[in-house]
Amino acid sequence: MEGSPEQVTRIDDLPVRDELRGRSPYGAPQLDVPVRLNTNENPYPLPDALVERITERVREAARQLNRYPDRDAVELRTALAAYLTRTGKHPVTLANVWAANGSNEVIQQLLQTFGGPGRTALGFEPSYSMHPLISRGTGTRWIDGPRRDDFTLDEADATRAVTEHRPDVVFITTPNNPTGNAVPADTVRALYEAAQDAKPSMVVADEAYVEFSHGDSLLPLLEGRPHLVVSRTMSKAFGAAGLRLGYLAADPAVVDAVQLVRLPYHLSAVTQATALAALEHTDTLLKYVDQLKSERDRLVTELRALDYEVTVSDANFVQFGRFDGDGGPHAVWQRILDRGVLVRDNGVPGRLRVTVGTPEENDAFLDAVREVKKELSA
Amino acid sequence: MEGSPEQVTRIDDLPVRDELRGRSPYGAPQLDVPVRLNTNENPYPLPDALVERITERVREAARQLNRYPDRDAVELRTALAAYLTRTGKHPVTLANVWAANGSNEVIQQLLQTFGGPGRTALGFEPSYSMHPLISRGTGTRWIDGPRRDDFTLDEADATRAVTEHRPDVVFITTPNNPTGNAVPADTVRALYEAAQDAKPSMVVADEAYVEFSHGDSLLPLLEGRPHLVVSRTMSKAFGAAGLRLGYLAADPAVVDAVQLVRLPYHLSAVTQATALAALEHTDTLLKYVDQLKSERDRLVTELRALDYEVTVSDANFVQFGRFDGDGGPHAVWQRILDRGVLVRDNGVPGRLRVTVGTPEENDAFLDAVREVKKELSA
Repeated sequence: MEGSPEQVTRIDDLPVRDELRGRSPYGAPQLDVPVRLNTNENPYPLPDALVERITERVREAARQLNRYPDRDAVELRTALAAYLTRTGKHPVTLANVWAANGSNEVIQQLLQTFGGPGRTALGFEPSYSMHPLISRGTGTRWIDGPRRDDFTLDEADATRAVTEHRPDVVFITTPNNPTGNAVPADTVRALYEAAQDAKPSMVVADEAYVEFSHGDSLLPLLEGRPHLVVSRTMSKAFGAAGLRLGYLAADPAVVDAVQLVRLPYHLSAVTQATALAALEHTDTLLKYVDQLKSERDRLVTELRALDYEVTVSDANFVQFGRFDGDGGPHAVWQRILDRGVLVRDNGVPGRLRVTVGTPEENDAFLDAVREVKKELSA
Repeated sequence: MEGSPEQVTRIDDLPVRDELRGRSPYGAPQLDVPVRLNTNENPYPLPDALVERITERVREAARQLNRYPDRDAVELRTALAAYLTRTGKHPVTLANVWAANGSNEVIQQLLQTFGGPGRTALGFEPSYSMHPLISRGTGTRWIDGPRRDDFTLDEADATRAVTEHRPDVVFITTPNNPTGNAVPADTVRALYEAAQDAKPSMVVADEAYVEFSHGDSLLPLLEGRPHLVVSRTMSKAFGAAGLRLGYLAADPAVVDAVQLVRLPYHLSAVTQATALAALEHTDTLLKYVDQLKSERDRLVTELRALDYEVTVSDANFVQFGRFDGDGGPHAVWQRILDRGVLVRDNGVPGRLRVTVGTPEENDAFLDAVREVKKELSA
C-alpha cells in the first residue's frame, strides 16, 4: 500500500461524519519519564500472589478460549455485587450490576440507551472529559452545568440548570475528576429530585475514585431511585487500569435496558478471569488504597505549605495552582516535566493535577515543584 | 433493593430511547447440550503449548496491570499486519491495521465514523445480523439489498441497489454468514465502483470466515481503494471466540479516522497479551483450519447424499434444508436438539445452519439428522 506523497489519503478525504472533521484523538501524552503522575494510575503493581492467581484463572479460561465467553458475565457480576455490598453499606445483587470494558464503555452503553440523537446530557465542567466526548460520540447533545469558582457544586444553581435544560441524562462525578472534590449526598438527592421533576431523567453518579474518599459511596441512594446509576471502575482502587473493567450498580431494569445496546459477548473470557482474580485479593488492594489516601493528604499539606491553592481532594490525585502568571499552567507543567516528573494539564485555568504516587514518587514531585517555585521566584 | 411486586421497575418504565421499547437483547441461546454446533465456534481447544504461552504473556502483562495498556496496541497491530501479509497475498503494515474487542466493536467504530444519524448502511440479507443491529445502535438507517434465491449476489442487481440508495456504508460479508457462500472479487470490485460513483461511500468486506474459504482474501483489493475496509476476527480461525479480538485492514487514513471515535484504552493489556500469544502459534492453529475445511466438505457431501439442499460453503458452517413442511425449520431444530445436538435457526426460511465440529461431533450431528429424517418420513 505505497504511493507517492501526493496520493496519500487523509482523514478529511474520507467520507467521515462532519462533526469529526478537523478533530484529533483523545488521550494524554504517553511519555517515557521516570515519574508518571499524569493519568491517576495506582502506583503499586499487583502483588505477586495476585499475579499468580491471575495466571491460574487465565490458564483455565484459555483452555476454553475457543468458546464464546459468558455473555452475561454472571460469576463476575456476582463477585462485584459482593464487593459493593461489603464496602458500600447497601445490599447489591447480580441483578443490580453490569460490567463492561472500562467505565467508558459503561457510559457509552448508558448514553446509547438513555441519550442519543435528539436527547441531551448535562454535566458540571470541569469534570471527566469523556462524559462530553462519549455524549457527542453517541449523538447526545452536551450541556455544561455550573460549578463554583472553588469547583464545588452550588445546590441551587445546579438543580436550576437541571430544571431549566431538562436533560435526559445528568452526570455527577464524585469525587470529581480533575478537581478532586466529592459532591455531598444531599446535593445528589436534590439533583435526582430535580431530574425527576423535569422529565424524568437518568442520573449517573460516576464514582471512579470513591474508594479514596473521606466519605461514603452513594450506593445507599439507589434505594427507591430507579433512575439513579452508580458507575465504578477497577482501574484505580484495584490497581488494574490495564484490565479495563468498569461496572455499574442500579435498579435491575437499568441492567436489563443496557443489554439492549451492549455488543454481544463484549467482555472477553480473559478479562472476566483477571477481574475475578483481582476481586479475590480485595483486602490487600484496599490496603494500598489506605496508603495512597495518607500520601494524598500529605501532598495536600505540603503543597499548601508551599503556598499553593489546593482543591480539597477525595481522590488519588490533587489539583493545585494557581499558575496564572509564569506562562500559565502549561509552562509550569513543562518545567516539572524537565525534572523527570509528568503531571497533567487538564486545561483547568491556572491549575495542574498530580496523581498520588508512591512516597518516593511524591517526594520526587515535591522536590521538582520546590525547585520550579524557586526558579520562578528568582 | 427489595420491593413489593407492584413496585418492580421494567425497562419500559425507564426513559429509554423509543426505538428500544419492546426489544429484547440479541444472542443465541446458550444451552448446555453434549454437541454445540450453533455459534460457529472452533471445536478445537487451544493446544497446551499455546495455553502456557498465554499464561506467560499474561503474567508479564499482569505485573504492569496498574498502568493503562498501550492505547494504540502497536505490538499487536504489527503482529496482525505480519499475519495478513503472510497469508493475504498483499503487504500490510501497522499503519493499515486497527484492532478492537471483537469485530462487533470494529464495526461499531466504523459506523460511528462513517455512518450515524442522517446516514445509511446497506447490506444483503440474510447476512450477519449484527450489521443491521449495530447500524441501528449507532443511529444509522439500515437498507436491505437484494440476494438471489440461492443466496448468491447478482452483480447487476446488487450494484443497482447501491446506485439507487447511495448508502454511506456498504457491507459485503464474504464468506457470508449464515449462508456460507463467498462473494467473487469481481462483484466486490463492481460494488466498490458503484459505491464511489454514488457518493463516495465506504465498503466494508466482513471476512470473519475467510480462512475457511476455498478462495483468497480480498486484501489485494485494498491497493488503490482508500474507501475499502477488510474486517477480520480471531474468533474463528484462531479458535479464540473467548478472546474477543477483531481487527481491520484498510488505508492508513481509515485507521486514523476510527481513532477519533474509539474509547481510549479500549483494548485491555490481557487481551493484547493473549492475542499476541495466539499469533505466535498461527501455524498450529491454521492446521486445525485445514481439518475443519475437510470436515466441512464432508458435511456438505453427506447432507447432499441425504437429499438436502445445501448452500455452497466457504466457511466453518453449512446451511441446509429445505424444511418448508414438517413444522418448518424450528420444529426440525427442536428434533435435532432432542438428540443432544444444538444447531442454529437463523430465521432463513426453510433452512438451518450447522457449525463444523470435530469428526465425532459431525458424526453425532449426521446421525441425529438421519434419525430425524427417518422419523419425519415415517
